[in-house]
Amino acid sequence: MEYKAIKLLKRPQNEITADIFETVTLQTPALEKDQFLVKQTHMSLDPAMRTWMDDNDDSYVEPVAVGDVMRSFGVGEIVESKNDNYPVGSRVLGMTGWAEYVLGGDDMQIVPLELPVEALLCVMYVPGLTAYLGLMEIARPKAGETLVVSGAAGSVGSLAGQIGKAEGLRVIGIAGSDEKCEWLEQELGFDKAINYKTADLEAEISAAAPHGVDVYFENTGGPVQQVVFNHMNRFGRIAVCGMISDYNREEPAPGPSWKQINLKALRVEGFVILDHYDKIPQMTEALGGYLAKGQLKYRIHKLHGLDSAIDGVNLLFSGNNKGKLVVEL
Amino acid sequence: MEYKAIKLLKRPQNEITADIFETVTLQTPALEKDQFLVKQTHMSLDPAMRTWMDDNDDSYVEPVAVGDVMRSFGVGEIVESKNDNYPVGSRVLGMTGWAEYVLGGDDMQIVPLELPVEALLCVMYVPGLTAYLGLMEIARPKAGETLVVSGAAGSVGSLAGQIGKAEGLRVIGIAGSDEKCEWLEQELGFDKAINYKTADLEAEISAAAPHGVDVYFENTGGPVQQVVFNHMNRFGRIAVCGMISDYNREEPAPGPSWKQINLKALRVEGFVILDHYDKIPQMTEALGGYLAKGQLKYRIHKLHGLDSAIDGVNLLFSGNNKGKLVVEL
Repeated sequence: MEYKAIKLLKRPQNEITADIFETVTLQTPALEKDQFLVKQTHMSLDPAMRTWMDDNDDSYVEPVAVGDVMRSFGVGEIVESKNDNYPVGSRVLGMTGWAEYVLGGDDMQIVPLELPVEALLCVMYVPGLTAYLGLMEIARPKAGETLVVSGAAGSVGSLAGQIGKAEGLRVIGIAGSDEKCEWLEQELGFDKAINYKTADLEAEISAAAPHGVDVYFENTGGPVQQVVFNHMNRFGRIAVCGMISDYNREEPAPGPSWKQINLKALRVEGFVILDHYDKIPQMTEALGGYLAKGQLKYRIHKLHGLDSAIDGVNLLFSGNNKGKLVVEL
Repeated sequence: MEYKAIKLLKRPQNEITADIFETVTLQTPALEKDQFLVKQTHMSLDPAMRTWMDDNDDSYVEPVAVGDVMRSFGVGEIVESKNDNYPVGSRVLGMTGWAEYVLGGDDMQIVPLELPVEALLCVMYVPGLTAYLGLMEIARPKAGETLVVSGAAGSVGSLAGQIGKAEGLRVIGIAGSDEKCEWLEQELGFDKAINYKTADLEAEISAAAPHGVDVYFENTGGPVQQVVFNHMNRFGRIAVCGMISDYNREEPAPGPSWKQINLKALRVEGFVILDHYDKIPQMTEALGGYLAKGQLKYRIHKLHGLDSAIDGVNLLFSGNNKGKLVVEL
C-alpha cells in the first residue's frame, strides 16, 4: 500500500522553512512476526520537535538524521498485526513521525477508545504529562503559593496554570495577545493574565504578585524571563520546560545572573518528559482525576493533511496557534 | 572596661574602602541576668560579609544598619557570666562582629577547648559547613562523578574539593595562580587544577573532564562560569555557593542561557548556610570524620589586630589571601 511521509532534507538555519522537508511516497512493508501497522490519525506538533531538527550534541535525544522521516508524537489505529499484544482495531499512541502509516513498536501504548482523541492529545499525553511533571514533580509547589506561567496560553502552559489552580495556587499567566489573556482569565480561571507584548510587565507583575513569585513555570525565555526572575521569593523554584523564544535563534540569549540564585537560595531545574517514563502511570492517573472534576479545559487547533505540518509547525514559534496543534490525517 | 569596635559608617560603592568604617572606643556593659561577656580571640572574614554591607532587599539577612558594628562570625572566650549555661572559661563561636568584646546570646555555641582554633575556624565552622552543605546536600554527587570547583583555593572551595575526593569523585579545581594550583594538586590531592588567568580554560577543561562535568561547585561567577556550564553533562547539578567576582560590581554579569538547563535537565541551586542550621550537628559530625581521617587539609591566613580587618577583607575579593582569613585579636 502506498503512503505519504515527510523527510528532513537538511537542518534548519534558525527558522523552519519548507525547503528543509520533502514529501515522499513510500510502500507499507510486509509484516514480520511481532510487527504491526498503524494508520496514523492524528499527528501532534510540539515545540520539542524544533530541537530534534538540530544536530546538537547536548540534546536529550539523537537528532532526526538528515534523510529520515521527521519525528513526532501521534495517535493511530492498528490496521494490520502479527503481534498478539497489539490487536487490529486498537488505538495506540507513541513516536510516530510525519507519515500516514507507521510500523508499530513495543514502545507504543494502547489507549482506551472511550477517551476522546482530543482529550488524549491535549491533556493525557505530552502536554498534560509535561505540565504535571514540571509543576508537581520538579517545582513542587505548596497551596497558597504564587505561580507564574510563561507561554501560558500554550498547550503545556495552559495546563500548568490550571493544575496550579486545582492545587490551590495563585496563578498568573503571561501570554502574547489580549485574546489569549481573556481566555486564560475568563475560561481557565487564571487569577491574572498579562499580555507581555503590550503591558508594562514589571508593573503588572508587581501588582499581580505583591508578595513575590514562589514558582515560575518557564516555557519561553526571552525578555519575560529576567522580569519574572527579579520577582522570585527566597526558596523559589523555576521549572525550565522550554525556551520557545530561543529555539530559532543562532545564539541563545543569556540568562539572569546567578547572584540572586545564591542569595535567594533559588532552584532552577530543567526537565524533559522522556526522562520520566517511569512516572507516566501515576501522572496519567492524576491528570485523569483533574479532567474528571472538570478542572482542565483545553482547545485544539487542527490542521488537515500531512503536508499541513510543514508550515503548521511554525505556528508554535510565532505564537499564532490557538490551542494544541494537531494534524488530522 | 574599654574596648575597640568598628562601625559601618556608610554602604560601599562597589569596592570596600577604608572610609566606610570607623573605629570607636566603647565600654563593656554591666551584665544583667542570663547575659555573658565574650572576649573575642579570632574574627573570621568571609565573602558573605560583602553582601551584608549592601542594602539589598533580596538578601537572606538584614543588612548591617549604617552606624552599627560590622557583623562577622568569630570565636572567643567567656570572661564574665550571669548565665549558668555559659560558664566563664568556655570557648564560644557565633555571630560576634568587629569588636574586641561582645555581649553573648543563646545563639552562641560552646565548642570544646581541645579542638585547635585553626581547625575550628578553617573546617568545622563556616567554611566546612558551607562546603559540605553545597556539595553533599545540594549537589548530591555519586562516587565516580566529575566535580569542578571554582574558587578552588578559597576556604570553602578547597574543602569542597577535598570532600569530593573523600567521596570518590574526580575533582578539578579552578584557581587564580600557579602557586594555588600547585597547592591543590600537590597538597590537597585534586586530580587537576587550572589557573584560569593563564590557561585556555576551554581546552583544559575538555582535557581534564573528557566525559563532561557532573557537578559544579560555583564560588566565583565571572568568565569561568560559562565555560564550565558548557561542559555540564545531562542531569548535572550546580551548587551556587557564591559569586565572588560579582560582589563588587554594580550590575551583576548575566548568566548562561537556560536553554541547556532545559535540554540537559540541569539543576542550578543556590544555598546559604544560615538556612540550614538544623543540619549543623549532622554536618559537623561528618566534617569531624573527614578531619580524623586526615582527609581535610587547610591553611590559615592570619591578620593581627582589630583594624587589620578593614583592609584585610578585600583580600577575599582580590584573591590575594593565602588560606582562610582570620583576624587574631
